[in-house]
Amino acid sequence: MPRGQHPTPLRWMGGPDGRLQLLDQTELPGRVVRLDCRHPREVRAAIRRLAVRGAPLIGIAAAYGVVLAARHPGFVRETTRLASARPTAVNLAAAVARMLALDTRDSALLLAEARAIHREDEEACRAIGRLSFPLLRGAVLTHCNAGALATGGPGTALAGVYEALRRGRRVRVFADETRPLLQGARLTAWELDRAGADVTVLVDGAAAALLASGRVGCVFTGADRIAANGDVANKIGTRAVALAAHDAGIPFYVAAPLTTFDPKTRTGASIRIEERAETEVLGAGTRATAPKGVRAWNPAFDVTPARLVTALICERGVLRPPFGSAIAAVTGRR
Amino acid sequence: MPRGQHPTPLRWMGGPDGRLQLLDQTELPGRVVRLDCRHPREVRAAIRRLAVRGAPLIGIAAAYGVVLAARHPGFVRETTRLASARPTAVNLAAAVARMLALDTRDSALLLAEARAIHREDEEACRAIGRLSFPLLRGAVLTHCNAGALATGGPGTALAGVYEALRRGRRVRVFADETRPLLQGARLTAWELDRAGADVTVLVDGAAAALLASGRVGCVFTGADRIAANGDVANKIGTRAVALAAHDAGIPFYVAAPLTTFDPKTRTGASIRIEERAETEVLGAGTRATAPKGVRAWNPAFDVTPARLVTALICERGVLRPPFGSAIAAVTGRR
Repeated sequence: MPRGQHPTPLRWMGGPDGRLQLLDQTELPGRVVRLDCRHPREVRAAIRRLAVRGAPLIGIAAAYGVVLAARHPGFVRETTRLASARPTAVNLAAAVARMLALDTRDSALLLAEARAIHREDEEACRAIGRLSFPLLRGAVLTHCNAGALATGGPGTALAGVYEALRRGRRVRVFADETRPLLQGARLTAWELDRAGADVTVLVDGAAAALLASGRVGCVFTGADRIAANGDVANKIGTRAVALAAHDAGIPFYVAAPLTTFDPKTRTGASIRIEERAETEVLGAGTRATAPKGVRAWNPAFDVTPARLVTALICERGVLRPPFGSAIAAVTGRR
Repeated sequence: MPRGQHPTPLRWMGGPDGRLQLLDQTELPGRVVRLDCRHPREVRAAIRRLAVRGAPLIGIAAAYGVVLAARHPGFVRETTRLASARPTAVNLAAAVARMLALDTRDSALLLAEARAIHREDEEACRAIGRLSFPLLRGAVLTHCNAGALATGGPGTALAGVYEALRRGRRVRVFADETRPLLQGARLTAWELDRAGADVTVLVDGAAAALLASGRVGCVFTGADRIAANGDVANKIGTRAVALAAHDAGIPFYVAAPLTTFDPKTRTGASIRIEERAETEVLGAGTRATAPKGVRAWNPAFDVTPARLVTALICERGVLRPPFGSAIAAVTGRR
């Protein structure tokens, strides 16, 4: 695979009567399995079981899901169910709302809009990459996966890394494994290793020691929702990384397209955090690791307060504190 | 099992010609397997593969290992190898040094000393429990396992919880699962659930969100080595928990017997941190989770700076900052 090239987690196959093909991310890195979706409930199921994940990508998948829904009875019910497949990423509901705003069930028109959403996300990722590249210093630490597997382009957090690789630079990335579902070990390591980066995986608990050791120059993560004040909802564990970066004096950057910004949410305190099944924590794969009868608390996301964020990077620029006015300016709200 | 009662991870069976029986902690919580050790290299192997673990407990195991070594040729070589089985916990080398200070190979004398080390640790744990109990507030968060399975008594971090359970109190404990080897999910959850506590497991990355949520009143962890200035080496991930507790204004307590204090080590920067096999991070159980060829960084411990520690609890009292003088007073150095 050429250096700096990224995988494609989602493709529309054919014309308006075509199908949505998804890379099943639950099978990575062991197997490359593609799923064909012809019904919106298949798209919703893929989103819910994290076969397709990442805030921008589930927005794109849901947009194509609306194209599929237009061919089936129960269009309104199916699109409503798509929009609520997962609660935290604002991209999902926003993409469905944009599709519905066309107020049509014409497959060709809907497909054109879904393709536009897809293409705009790819362009946003590339812009984020160009803006992030000059901010790279030394080795990069990242959490979860906000790479090509989470978007329609070269990722958000990892877009700057891809930009550097394409320019022939060597890049070292430390990837938190990201329990419980190991998106860092399984997905970030997989896509960056293929792209020619030097990837080292660590347990989430080791990030604070790594940051204190001076071996990392910057942290880049993605986001699932960014509130009007700059508070960031992202994969569980992000807050701990931000605290450790802050303590070590290392810049903590959050990269996300404008579709992830939610100016209607005032602060992180109002963001609804998805809680997932206890079994994700109480076992590893199919094996139980905790004693029977013991409970687990399994929030999928946490909120990193704006005070811990060095800059927010979106396709319109690098936003610096105070974030309130900067976010209002790029999202056109004040 | 009666409320507040704790398991016994290690027993000497018989007289001076007896054997050391260890609970194989790698098999928990699935199976209760006991290992009989008659040769010091079996004790060393059990320490290295974490069948027996926890700073106080590996000191005790090594002391009994010296009793076994006295019967075999190569006494000096075997005891040296025991003392260096793992590098970070000061208890290990200190216990072996105390055994060797007897300057004898008389099994009865050596066994009496090993039993004394064992009994003193049990007493230290009970004293730590009495001192910790009044500090408990609301639900407790703990990291890794610093319970009965890590000591010769009711644990260090968990001693206060056992004290509360014995007094008939209800106690809620949140246990970080503690990757990579899941001592929290496997061991802390197992022993506290048996003892009647209400245990909830979470991924390490969720601790910061939990602390920010206000659902926890205090954090208790153990230690593998405490430097003269109060810096604490403990299981990887402890530093992140301390940072999150500090940020949330929640007290962060470290409980350890005096044998874990190392006044000869000036600060945490001089503590040698064990790095373990990459495979512990790159797989879960026997299954690989990261792509082939990707590397891992796997430090077993990190250092929590003294500035993040609310108090150190040892058998002689609750030490408050500034820790330098308090530690010098209880360890008899100045």
